[in-house]
Amino acid sequence: MADLSEPLYAVIMAGGRGERFWPLGRKSRPKQLLSLTDERTMIENTLNRLTPLLPPERILVLTNRDYVEPIRSLLPLPPENVVGEPVARDTAPCAALAAALIRRRNPAAVPTMLLLPSVQELRDGAALRRVLRAAAARAARGELVTIGIRPDSPNTGFGYLELGAELTAEPVRFYQVKAFREKPDPETAKRFLEAGNFRWNSGIFVWRTGDLLRAFRRFAPELATMTEQLCAVPDSEFSATLERLFPACPRISIDYAVMEKADHIVAAEATFDWDDVGSWNSVRQRLQPDDAGNAVRGTAELVDCRNCLVVGDSDHLIGAIGVEDLVIVTAGNATLVCPRNRVQEVKKLVQAVAEAKHGDRYL
Amino acid sequence: MADLSEPLYAVIMAGGRGERFWPLGRKSRPKQLLSLTDERTMIENTLNRLTPLLPPERILVLTNRDYVEPIRSLLPLPPENVVGEPVARDTAPCAALAAALIRRRNPAAVPTMLLLPSVQELRDGAALRRVLRAAAARAARGELVTIGIRPDSPNTGFGYLELGAELTAEPVRFYQVKAFREKPDPETAKRFLEAGNFRWNSGIFVWRTGDLLRAFRRFAPELATMTEQLCAVPDSEFSATLERLFPACPRISIDYAVMEKADHIVAAEATFDWDDVGSWNSVRQRLQPDDAGNAVRGTAELVDCRNCLVVGDSDHLIGAIGVEDLVIVTAGNATLVCPRNRVQEVKKLVQAVAEAKHGDRYL
Repeated sequence: MADLSEPLYAVIMAGGRGERFWPLGRKSRPKQLLSLTDERTMIENTLNRLTPLLPPERILVLTNRDYVEPIRSLLPLPPENVVGEPVARDTAPCAALAAALIRRRNPAAVPTMLLLPSVQELRDGAALRRVLRAAAARAARGELVTIGIRPDSPNTGFGYLELGAELTAEPVRFYQVKAFREKPDPETAKRFLEAGNFRWNSGIFVWRTGDLLRAFRRFAPELATMTEQLCAVPDSEFSATLERLFPACPRISIDYAVMEKADHIVAAEATFDWDDVGSWNSVRQRLQPDDAGNAVRGTAELVDCRNCLVVGDSDHLIGAIGVEDLVIVTAGNATLVCPRNRVQEVKKLVQAVAEAKHGDRYL
Repeated sequence: MADLSEPLYAVIMAGGRGERFWPLGRKSRPKQLLSLTDERTMIENTLNRLTPLLPPERILVLTNRDYVEPIRSLLPLPPENVVGEPVARDTAPCAALAAALIRRRNPAAVPTMLLLPSVQELRDGAALRRVLRAAAARAARGELVTIGIRPDSPNTGFGYLELGAELTAEPVRFYQVKAFREKPDPETAKRFLEAGNFRWNSGIFVWRTGDLLRAFRRFAPELATMTEQLCAVPDSEFSATLERLFPACPRISIDYAVMEKADHIVAAEATFDWDDVGSWNSVRQRLQPDDAGNAVRGTAELVDCRNCLVVGDSDHLIGAIGVEDLVIVTAGNATLVCPRNRVQEVKKLVQAVAEAKHGDRYL
């Protein structure tokens, strides 16, 4: 980090819920607190990728208020670095709050911040840190930096970055960003892959807090106002101010609020294996299916099954005969059975369970 | 029963295991002790159909030794009427043992016995009793009587009786039996249904113990010998004798040992709704599927599912999305997922679980 003149912070956004991973994910056990692909929780893996880069004091976690205590118990961070959002409000208000928290700690300097999701799957932490370091150096020049992943398939589950001119090639390639593209249909995704100048939007951003604030002032002034007010109040009034201002923020993503509109957006290109662990399908891929295409966690007995994901609970056996392309998950007091191509509807199922008035017992 | 000159006994064969109904059925909870189609266990329903016909003292239950105590606790029968077989040996040795038990109680008379499975689903108990009464009257003439069910579909899960000449039409139709036919393939089953002179083999038999013994002497002399020896010993030696002789019996069904070979086999025709509850498919039919074809027991949330059977455990929710013709069962520490047309393979799955060396915990 010899090339960084300002203090560097990382902000882990851990506001997600576990609905897509029901029944393993529950209200009390959101995605970031699940161990989906290895022994550790997703958020521990995310933190462990950052700790070689920065000290714990400069890593913040922003999360749903309900998850503050579990995360404080889990992660070796100063407790005050785990902050609860009064309500859930997408990534732009989260970034605005993070900017305020960082600036309150560094009123004189112009800190740089890495903003990243708590749930991502990538094996090559060193490659990530190389990209983040280069991105921070680039951000020190006043640019808003995003990380694009070079696609290896026409994935329709991710947003895409459309790249313009290449800016540098070493040590990491950087490009101008021409446009942010929503999750494409299969045909468009194929075109993106063939065109060569599209990257998956990783949801990882790097910028100086001052530059972010400037962008908020121009494109989302209510968020800039919140950040400024949160910076101005004395410690004793911070909580009450947050409580008042945060719920009034629009539900809006950082992509939509700022990145799609601002100039000087650049993308660092990452070539590491990456996934946002967006559904049970991601988990299946990560668990390395056997020759029959079945990925199993826990205890299972599969007779003539193909291309399934089977996740059992401890001391609960799942037995299946002759099924294909099915996701079967048992966790605690609930079981999910769903074709792989419909896992996006698990949220809908959870909604139906909620409406069925069993109380919270299955949620 | 005014037309019956001899004492009438009923023998309920309750030797079955629960493998086809895993994971609800377990080693410790065989099919006859499950409540599959209503609130009561299968064996209670079977007993309740008989009690208007004969007193509890004349109803015997023969079962696996492990199930003697649970059945004694469950059924309002004299405890000595629930008898454990030393080992499992199909229906012919069971009938031979039953004949001995009955003759020991009635050395002078020539008792008639109804032999029937512990698991059958039929709603019209009065119709069953009418048929049994007529069959007993017929048996009093020295015939070996079986009950055939008039088929309403080309079911391939049952054995069939091929009927010959009609013998009487009132109060119940009786026919000569030309042949016993094994479970047919679909085409043969269709032919049977169209031919009109085939009936489902219900596994219910009625005969005088003396006539059964005569048939054993001719076609299965080792079984006749066991019955005679069991009749001859004093009470104090009965158990030890049973222990010695029963395991030496061949594993053979009463159909194969006697009925397929003997003359004078007649069939009473039953027209009541009947099922042998042979697999999860039978359970689905009995649970009365909803408009989408889904039959549900327990707590479930089904989104866009069709023609499924879903059996949940108490306080365990099964959620499914977009699946068809699937059987999903959770019970205790195990879950089954299997297409409806492969439920016959559940036994195979249980075998695989047994071989996987989890101990007995999932069996």
